[in-house]
Amino acid sequence: MIEAGIVGGTGYTGVELLRLLSGHDQVNIKVITSRAEAGKPVSDLYPNLRGHVDIPFSEPDIGVLRECDVVFFATPNGIAMTMAAELLEAGVKVIDLAADFRLKDIDEWQQWYGMEHACPDLVAKAVYGLPEVNRASIREAQLVANPGCYPTATQLGFLPLIENGLVDTGTLVADCKSGVSGAGRGANVGTLFCEAGDSLKAYAVSGHRHLPEITQGLTEATDDIINLTFVPHLTPMIRGIHATLYARAKADVADLQLLYEQRYADEPFVDVLPADSHPDTRSVRSSNVCRIAVHASPRDNMIIVLSVIDNLVKGAAGQAVQNMNLMFDLPETSGLLRAALLP
Amino acid sequence: MIEAGIVGGTGYTGVELLRLLSGHDQVNIKVITSRAEAGKPVSDLYPNLRGHVDIPFSEPDIGVLRECDVVFFATPNGIAMTMAAELLEAGVKVIDLAADFRLKDIDEWQQWYGMEHACPDLVAKAVYGLPEVNRASIREAQLVANPGCYPTATQLGFLPLIENGLVDTGTLVADCKSGVSGAGRGANVGTLFCEAGDSLKAYAVSGHRHLPEITQGLTEATDDIINLTFVPHLTPMIRGIHATLYARAKADVADLQLLYEQRYADEPFVDVLPADSHPDTRSVRSSNVCRIAVHASPRDNMIIVLSVIDNLVKGAAGQAVQNMNLMFDLPETSGLLRAALLP
Amino acid sequence: MIEAGIVGGTGYTGVELLRLLSGHDQVNIKVITSRAEAGKPVSDLYPNLRGHVDIPFSEPDIGVLRECDVVFFATPNGIAMTMAAELLEAGVKVIDLAADFRLKDIDEWQQWYGMEHACPDLVAKAVYGLPEVNRASIREAQLVANPGCYPTATQLGFLPLIENGLVDTGTLVADCKSGVSGAGRGANVGTLFCEAGDSLKAYAVSGHRHLPEITQGLTEATDDIINLTFVPHLTPMIRGIHATLYARAKADVADLQLLYEQRYADEPFVDVLPADSHPDTRSVRSSNVCRIAVHASPRDNMIIVLSVIDNLVKGAAGQAVQNMNLMFDLPETSGLLRAALLP
Amino acid sequence: MIEAGIVGGTGYTGVELLRLLSGHDQVNIKVITSRAEAGKPVSDLYPNLRGHVDIPFSEPDIGVLRECDVVFFATPNGIAMTMAAELLEAGVKVIDLAADFRLKDIDEWQQWYGMEHACPDLVAKAVYGLPEVNRASIREAQLVANPGCYPTATQLGFLPLIENGLVDTGTLVADCKSGVSGAGRGANVGTLFCEAGDSLKAYAVSGHRHLPEITQGLTEATDDIINLTFVPHLTPMIRGIHATLYARAKADVADLQLLYEQRYADEPFVDVLPADSHPDTRSVRSSNVCRIAVHASPRDNMIIVLSVIDNLVKGAAGQAVQNMNLMFDLPETSGLLRAALLP
Repeated sequence: MIEAGIVGGTGYTGVELLRLLSGHDQVNIKVITSRAEAGKPVSDLYPNLRGHVDIPFSEPDIGVLRECDVVFFATPNGIAMTMAAELLEAGVKVIDLAADFRLKDIDEWQQWYGMEHACPDLVAKAVYGLPEVNRASIREAQLVANPGCYPTATQLGFLPLIENGLVDTGTLVADCKSGVSGAGRGANVGTLFCEAGDSLKAYAVSGHRHLPEITQGLTEATDDIINLTFVPHLTPMIRGIHATLYARAKADVADLQLLYEQRYADEPFVDVLPADSHPDTRSVRSSNVCRIAVHASPRDNMIIVLSVIDNLVKGAAGQAVQNMNLMFDLPETSGLLRAALLP
Repeated sequence: MIEAGIVGGTGYTGVELLRLLSGHDQVNIKVITSRAEAGKPVSDLYPNLRGHVDIPFSEPDIGVLRECDVVFFATPNGIAMTMAAELLEAGVKVIDLAADFRLKDIDEWQQWYGMEHACPDLVAKAVYGLPEVNRASIREAQLVANPGCYPTATQLGFLPLIENGLVDTGTLVADCKSGVSGAGRGANVGTLFCEAGDSLKAYAVSGHRHLPEITQGLTEATDDIINLTFVPHLTPMIRGIHATLYARAKADVADLQLLYEQRYADEPFVDVLPADSHPDTRSVRSSNVCRIAVHASPRDNMIIVLSVIDNLVKGAAGQAVQNMNLMFDLPETSGLLRAALLP
Repeated sequence: MIEAGIVGGTGYTGVELLRLLSGHDQVNIKVITSRAEAGKPVSDLYPNLRGHVDIPFSEPDIGVLRECDVVFFATPNGIAMTMAAELLEAGVKVIDLAADFRLKDIDEWQQWYGMEHACPDLVAKAVYGLPEVNRASIREAQLVANPGCYPTATQLGFLPLIENGLVDTGTLVADCKSGVSGAGRGANVGTLFCEAGDSLKAYAVSGHRHLPEITQGLTEATDDIINLTFVPHLTPMIRGIHATLYARAKADVADLQLLYEQRYADEPFVDVLPADSHPDTRSVRSSNVCRIAVHASPRDNMIIVLSVIDNLVKGAAGQAVQNMNLMFDLPETSGLLRAALLP
Repeated sequence: MIEAGIVGGTGYTGVELLRLLSGHDQVNIKVITSRAEAGKPVSDLYPNLRGHVDIPFSEPDIGVLRECDVVFFATPNGIAMTMAAELLEAGVKVIDLAADFRLKDIDEWQQWYGMEHACPDLVAKAVYGLPEVNRASIREAQLVANPGCYPTATQLGFLPLIENGLVDTGTLVADCKSGVSGAGRGANVGTLFCEAGDSLKAYAVSGHRHLPEITQGLTEATDDIINLTFVPHLTPMIRGIHATLYARAKADVADLQLLYEQRYADEPFVDVLPADSHPDTRSVRSSNVCRIAVHASPRDNMIIVLSVIDNLVKGAAGQAVQNMNLMFDLPETSGLLRAALLP
């Protein structure tokens, strides 16, 4: 059994990690920390976990965490970078669900995240945990930077086009729609039921932290310059991301559908839908699947890709478990195979 | 492996059965019928099942169904009663998720359901599939009448009081709130997003088919006359039933909390919350659990029970799988142990 | 023109007052206070009011408020009682949308609201602003205690029965369902979209502040002792209260429907639906109407009343405007006549 | 008083017309037709209109309609074109809320709408009812083609850029999100609460009828070729359209914000938000306003416009009333001035 620790388990990615790990038969949840809730049973906060997770939250204790085989950070940005080094030295594998190790360019990271990075050297060693791109490296990694939710949906949608040099990478558009859980469990007016309900809006049009992460990922797939316009939207649903991606074809593409099907043929968690499909976010609710449909519009030479994930699963906790499976040489799908919840 | 057939699999209880059975490692889904969708892959209708259920819908064929070990009817009322006899004769176990075999009083059934019953003799043999009451009989049953959603939540909530003769059974009130999926997947104006969304209403105040079912169940637990006022409400959520139950105490009850905890101590799917709790329906979303809290109001001698289930799971497909597990001597919780989805 | 001031205008009752008063052709909104948002245009917080309310929030200034004809308190409990005396002395009419002046029994008030009352003498002078009961007194009042949302829906539903001595007042049950806006605009985890959405729960079963208010109101309508069991529920909609009321008939009631129709025949804002109706909350969304349906269940001698309001209108700001109209001898319906928003 | 008739009043645009016209003090609703509901009071179907609209639905009767001053068609496509000629001959003004008179190119209309056009000559005479473009013509018109919902939000958002030749009109993208009411009140599985709720999807990526309408409107504002990629999405809210518009700037634009403010300075129903704003759809819920924010992204030379309307008001019934006001020389804002409903 893999002994797992979770640092910062009171948010939505934390509870989702608990849900998934409690159903994973190779994992024992050894410790889950929360300063604010230390001493309180996890199931007091999350009654869905009654009978599934019986330990209480505890104060973060590096000594206990060092005894784990793997530690997940489900913390705000800036926490994992202060604790990772000591855990790695103790031989613990670390998966950070926040952004501390996602951007290779430290200056850019510091600019977008507004703080000084505590361990630039570890950033260099960290592997970006998108298995569909970095599977081999993840298997060998001791430190994985789990991708953001928008970046996961957007990169998986764009990659077949960019890897094959089929589109103008200077005019990409990603119009993304997120459920409210993407904003976390903090008590903010903007995400109250009566503020976010029955309404829809764009946000952060002038710039969002996931933009450099997406750009970095797409840049690694091409020699061309990536220029992406990224507009996120807050939409009145709990879970789900729908990325609508626009790319201008360089020339006629023979068979886009086949291209996508072949690119993801061996991927257990990317499902290319039949031609002319429109995936809905609920078709992946609670599951680790990314569903993709690709449409070509010959009239205006535009390729439109629709890519949906559950932001808390393939966009966070599920992908973290997928990465853990790879890092421990378990079957990649362990604990992640249940069908999505619909309706 | 148990070879399972599903008759009428296009509704919400059908897809939920498929979701649960596809994750049950002792079951193979052999056939799923639908006249309207025959020939179409199940996953065309329900993309969440892509990769989980690979067979197409087929025309109902009694020959194929007779080769199953168990057949679930996820059909409208009045279908199972026309096909059950032949299946039972062939040695197939039958679980009807509709109401054909729930009411022992044929006249009452015919009155509420507006049709003649096709096989009153089978009604007598059928076991009412509420494991918390009839576990031993279900184990021996060949034909199980799977309870309704309101009746499950309401009976589990009231039973400890009534079995122990603690309350006035002549003045019971069940004020029940249901998610919209309880109304099924039929194309009706009343359950459109813009009709049922952001609004709430009572319905069927003058009489609902689940009233005689609840009354029958409670009557078996007491020698007293049961008189229940039952008012269902349609509420703007997808899944979930919240039963708020009111019963007047005959006398001071020493320790209600202990009574409930003891009654359900060995039940894998009834979870009595700590004193002064208020279960929310999402704490059981996608799970087979019934969560119950009991409150006593000494001021007015009233006992208030809060009982929540997922109407499609413990209120339908999950309870059907629980019954199947019992009928085939499998561990009762097989395929039903995952934590609820929250948020 | 009536010069109106609003103290504490950043919550949902505040913005609703602004919406209604901005459409009232006899009212000029002179001042709206908020310590936290002083200096900021109202429409920065509430863009729906751009072009309708052009003044900024300002610090509460008793000098400015004294120059108003009427001051509304849309503040938390405990604020109005510290400012009302000075305004009343200056001849200003005061309408408190919070609870400071609702309960005549000061001890009971202090017990439920957990603070000492600042001006018990004013409580005695205040008129409880339920026009369907106290219209004449409201016309003469200088200080009106605007009723709570649950109390409005519940009293209007029960009153015809109790005024006429038709039911056992010792066993009343009010099972009430509220939209989330009833919990206000404060940043609390419990009312986040992902906590309150797609779920339903009871709360405060052991006791809610609106219970003594309802009991006081019903007690004034009868010589009998009122004993009410009141259970509020949080439901996933923005606006709306649905009160489901249960009362046991003392004897056969000749014509309940007629009784209700006659009781409210002259009421502009109480609409008794035809027999066998089920009002939905959206039928009163944004309007000041209370819609009521009454059902008798001869089988068990139970009378069931369904009563719906928009908690922010007839349950708060709309009723406050109705009271203002009465206090200033305007037509009672001024500014309140638009049809509800549906869908 | 203007005597108004409504043909086909049972859908969402019909009830919205009734809501708005019932609050318009210059209009009397003389007749509202529905074959299916003839004889039934309007308020049976729409209880929000009890006390506001007291007439019943009636069979369409050209004789009665000819006596109206104005007739609104809130019918499916293809109805108005069969009745308009006779009404126009009788001197009645006609406003079609469907698409019969929107496209000037008859062949294109016939291709997109899949039927033969009954009166191409009237199409030539019809005025496209977007007051911000065609105000003078609308004042003189006898037949107005009321714009579609997506076209209204999209054209108002793009027009200042295109009228001034600031962007590359060959690479426009409109990513639009609609509430479910845009799909109408028909009983379809796809718009059930449990299908469209808590989920989001694109639809009609291969082509939507509103594309030629938008293209036609934008083409009239420029000599350049318009090439627009338009992707509509179904989102889990009742009302609202959010258009996110992408256009590539030809060169640096001095002051986009000022450009938009000046373009719409005199428009009563277009509200340009301050720089760096993000309008939410609820800020226009129930109101006839289009709220617009414009963002320039110098990094990638992209201009992003956010444009929101209530699809049933400025996107349908409200704009129809605005057009009626113009056609009858009433103040343009009559009956349309109330603030939006928020929350």
